[in-house]
Amino acid sequence: MPLPIPDSAVEERAGIRAGDHVGPTSGLAPGFAQANLAMLPGDLALDFLRFCVRNPKPCPLLEVTDTGSARPATMARDADLRTDLPRYRVFCDGTLVNEPTDITQYWRDDLVAFLLGCSFTFDWALGAAGLQPAHQTQGVNVPMYVTNRDCVSAGRFAGPLVVSMRPFARGDIHRASEISSRFPAMHGGPVHAGNPAELGIVDLNAPDFGDPVRLAPDEIPVFWACGVTAQTVALEARPSLAIFHAPGHMFITDRPHVDFHRQEEGHDNP
Amino acid sequence: MPLPIPDSAVEERAGIRAGDHVGPTSGLAPGFAQANLAMLPGDLALDFLRFCVRNPKPCPLLEVTDTGSARPATMARDADLRTDLPRYRVFCDGTLVNEPTDITQYWRDDLVAFLLGCSFTFDWALGAAGLQPAHQTQGVNVPMYVTNRDCVSAGRFAGPLVVSMRPFARGDIHRASEISSRFPAMHGGPVHAGNPAELGIVDLNAPDFGDPVRLAPDEIPVFWACGVTAQTVALEARPSLAIFHAPGHMFITDRPHVDFHRQEEGHDNP
Repeated sequence: MPLPIPDSAVEERAGIRAGDHVGPTSGLAPGFAQANLAMLPGDLALDFLRFCVRNPKPCPLLEVTDTGSARPATMARDADLRTDLPRYRVFCDGTLVNEPTDITQYWRDDLVAFLLGCSFTFDWALGAAGLQPAHQTQGVNVPMYVTNRDCVSAGRFAGPLVVSMRPFARGDIHRASEISSRFPAMHGGPVHAGNPAELGIVDLNAPDFGDPVRLAPDEIPVFWACGVTAQTVALEARPSLAIFHAPGHMFITDRPHVDFHRQEEGHDNP
Repeated sequence: MPLPIPDSAVEERAGIRAGDHVGPTSGLAPGFAQANLAMLPGDLALDFLRFCVRNPKPCPLLEVTDTGSARPATMARDADLRTDLPRYRVFCDGTLVNEPTDITQYWRDDLVAFLLGCSFTFDWALGAAGLQPAHQTQGVNVPMYVTNRDCVSAGRFAGPLVVSMRPFARGDIHRASEISSRFPAMHGGPVHAGNPAELGIVDLNAPDFGDPVRLAPDEIPVFWACGVTAQTVALEARPSLAIFHAPGHMFITDRPHVDFHRQEEGHDNP
């Protein structure tokens, strides 16, 4: 696997901040992990954190900023979460009000920003192992489904688990599961493989988010917990203000994918 | 590895609650994970959570209760964190005031309880792999040291990383590292192996907490991030009230060690 180019994450963020890049972040700063963003008012922050801790597979916490601060403490140097993502979605009382490329005008001193792990990291690892996910080879967004499984609630935050789906041949499922399990901060291993009805999914061709993918005759759908869970649950709580990354327009961190590979963990990683 | 006996964790907690067991929990309910406990006033909970998220190796979050609730949401059924540990330490304004077997009299409606991962799980995995740690074979507490490495701060919570030490023969270090890395929610892999001075440790025979262990001539000290970090940092913040498990008197969860083994993670684990 090629090593990430030093400072490419910093440079991509600078380009995004300057407005030079307003599209999806897939493929930018190869080798660096990307993250889901959520911003919520401080009075909801403690319960949202509880929700994430109680549901670590859909909502793996990477970072929580100080109240009123848009600067990550550990995931990136000199980053500003108000400007460093290419596109945002802004919700007032649960209703989408804007999809700007910068949210400085919406920022409030009581906001807290959360970065959650993103499946791009295990998609990268699957690809590196010769198991490129179908949504990538078919050039579409990964299909996502609202399931019949309830998350563990916390305060006003409650709702169903949302999953993403990648089909694999039966003989590859064990390896795909093993590889993704190595990245617990990036949703980890699958939550189910096989029968969509087990998760309450009626029609694989009608995902709730993203695009359908074609399954080959010998392929089986494999489902992973998805960060969209955090977004749907946060909106159900109808906060006065909630800001998220626009789908596919993630935050690029300074942390290489391999930092989150628990097998690589070891000496002198603080 | 033998499977844990169903309900043995529930039974041990019941015995502890009834006052039948007031000693350390090592060896109780074999096969079930145990956890560090911290209880803090709600106005400090958000910053303490931030501290844990920013320092996941010493402070891996397993559970955060609702404000005023002593009932874990995911780690144990019908548990009460005020009575279900054999001994506690109660601090007012940073000063130890009592070491009771039950903290019901100290409980306040604004308290939040946190459960953090505990090294017993990887000690168990090391032992099962034929790498029983020296403190176990020598029948003492694991030695712990305050290091020269600062944690990432959050609000009033700041301070040095505390590590535990287990010596291993040079040829076993890679395997010990690999095995413990499989349990990221239980401190994961070591932070350093080799030179104590690298961590600012002057004398291995004078640990800051626990007991010294003897090193065989071919053995090298290996250091892991330690949950005591959370306790020392929380006390430095001098909260009006802070309650912790007494050393070695942990909370017994209903979750088998293998639940935290990332390689075992997979289908149908929510």
